Amino acid sequence: MRQWLNKTFYYKSKFYQLANMNTKHLAEGSTNPPLSKGKLRLYSMRFCPYAQRAHLVLDAKKIPYDIVNINLVQKPKWYFERNPVGKVPAIELESGDTVYESLIIADYLDEIYPQSPLHNKNPIQKAKDRILIENFSKVTGAIFGYYRDMSEEKLENLLKELDVFDKELTKRGKTFFGGDKPGMVDYMIWPWFERLDALKKISDNKFVIPESRIKKLAHWMKSMKSDEAVKVSYIDPESHGKFVKSFLDGSPNYDILVK
Amino acid sequence: MRQWLNKTFYYKSKFYQLANMNTKHLAEGSTNPPLSKGKLRLYSMRFCPYAQRAHLVLDAKKIPYDIVNINLVQKPKWYFERNPVGKVPAIELESGDTVYESLIIADYLDEIYPQSPLHNKNPIQKAKDRILIENFSKVTGAIFGYYRDMSEEKLENLLKELDVFDKELTKRGKTFFGGDKPGMVDYMIWPWFERLDALKKISDNKFVIPESRIKKLAHWMKSMKSDEAVKVSYIDPESHGKFVKSFLDGSPNYDILVK
Repeated sequence: MRQWLNKTFYYKSKFYQLANMNTKHLAEGSTNPPLSKGKLRLYSMRFCPYAQRAHLVLDAKKIPYDIVNINLVQKPKWYFERNPVGKVPAIELESGDTVYESLIIADYLDEIYPQSPLHNKNPIQKAKDRILIENFSKVTGAIFGYYRDMSEEKLENLLKELDVFDKELTKRGKTFFGGDKPGMVDYMIWPWFERLDALKKISDNKFVIPESRIKKLAHWMKSMKSDEAVKVSYIDPESHGKFVKSFLDGSPNYDILVK
Repeated sequence: MRQWLNKTFYYKSKFYQLANMNTKHLAEGSTNPPLSKGKLRLYSMRFCPYAQRAHLVLDAKKIPYDIVNINLVQKPKWYFERNPVGKVPAIELESGDTVYESLIIADYLDEIYPQSPLHNKNPIQKAKDRILIENFSKVTGAIFGYYRDMSEEKLENLLKELDVFDKELTKRGKTFFGGDKPGMVDYMIWPWFERLDALKKISDNKFVIPESRIKKLAHWMKSMKSDEAVKVSYIDPESHGKFVKSFLDGSPNYDILVK
C-alpha cells in the first residue's frame, strides 16, 4: 500500500517527467548516451509505428524511461551491440539486458509492471486478443500497398481490412477493444490509425476516412485521441505526411520534429 | 497435493490414452465429429510443423486431447466456422472457444496448464526465448528455400542460419535451450529439425547434417529424439520425405500414415 502511494505521488509529482520524444536521431559516428539510473531506455524512431507501440505501453503504465532515437538509414555501429538485428524498438534495462520485437516488448512490460494491466485477465480472451493483433498485419499490409499505389482497387482492399476491425469492435459492444478503456489491442493497432489522417494529405484528398462505413471504428479513433497515453507520442497528420513523403522519396527525414 | 496425486495417477493409468494421430484428414463434404467430454480438441495436419508445435506442448504437459486432421487442399466448409482463417493448428475448448496461431496456442496452454512449465519463469529470459523463436523463421525460410532450389548457395544459406542456433545453444551451456530438459524454445523449433533428416532423401544425399559444424545442435537433436513428448508425434524420415515429395509435386498426400 505504501509502495502504491509512493508510486502515485511519484507519477503526479514533478519528479516524473515525460521523456523528450523529439531528439535528434543518432547516426553512424555517434556514441550511445549512458543509461540513466532507475530508468528504462527505449531505442526508438520518432515516426516508426512499431516503436510507438512500446511508447504507448510505457506511457499507459507511466513507467519512467528515456529515449534514444536511431537513424535507421545510417545506423550507429554501437546499436548492433544493443540489438543484433538493428531494428527499433528495443528496450534496455539497467542490467544491460535488451528486448526487441514490439509485441514481445509490450507483453514483457505488461508482465512485469502490474499497474494499468493491458492484457485481458482471462487467458482465452488474452489469446483471442493476441490473434486479433496478429491479424492486424493485414491492415498494415493494405496501408503500405495503398502508399505505393493509390488506386481504387488498393483503397477498397484497405477498407475491407478495416471493416473486419469495425465489425469486431461492434461485436465487443464497448468503446475500446479493451472495454471501457484502451487495452493491449487498442495500443498495438493505434499507431497505424494515427497515420490514416495523413493519408488524406498524401493522396491529394483521394483518401478520406469513410466514417459512415466504419462507424464504430471512427468513434474509437476519436476516443483514442483523447487517451492520456496516446497524447504523449501523438504526431499531427501534417508532420506524419511530411515524413511519409520523405520516406517514399527515398531519403527519410527523421528529424522533422527536432527543435 | 491430492489433486497432483490424482493427476499423476490419471496420466499413468489406462484412462489417459494417447490420441490417435494417424486418422484420415477430413475434407469437403465431411462432418465435424462431436467434442469429447473433458478433452481439448486439436485440429491438425499430420505433417504440418506448426501443428506439431501444439502436439508437443499438449504431449509435454500430458493434457488429454483428441485430434481432427484436416485436408488443407480440400478444406471442409465447417472448419471455417471453427477457425475463420482455415489454417491448422487450432484448438477447441469444451466451451466452443477456439484459439489458432501455433505460438499463441503454445503460450495459452503454458499459461493455463501449470504442469511441466515450458516458458522460463524469469520474464526477461522468457522474452529473450520468444525473440529466439521469432528469429527461427529465418531457419524455416532457409529450409523452404532449399526445398525449392537444392543449390550449394541455398545450402550454405541454411547452414549459416543453423550456425546461429548452434552458437546460442553453446552459449547457454546446457543440453537443451530450456536447460536440463526441453522448454518452449526446444519444442517450438523441433518440428523443422525432425524434418532435416528427410532432406537427405529428398536431395539425393546432397544434404547431410554437418555434425562437425553444428556440434551442439547435432547432440541436441539426438537428445530431443529421446524426449517422451517428441516421441509421441515423431515421424520417420522416410515418411516425411514421401510427404514432402507429394507436396512439392502439387498433390500432398496427407494420409500416408493412415492404416
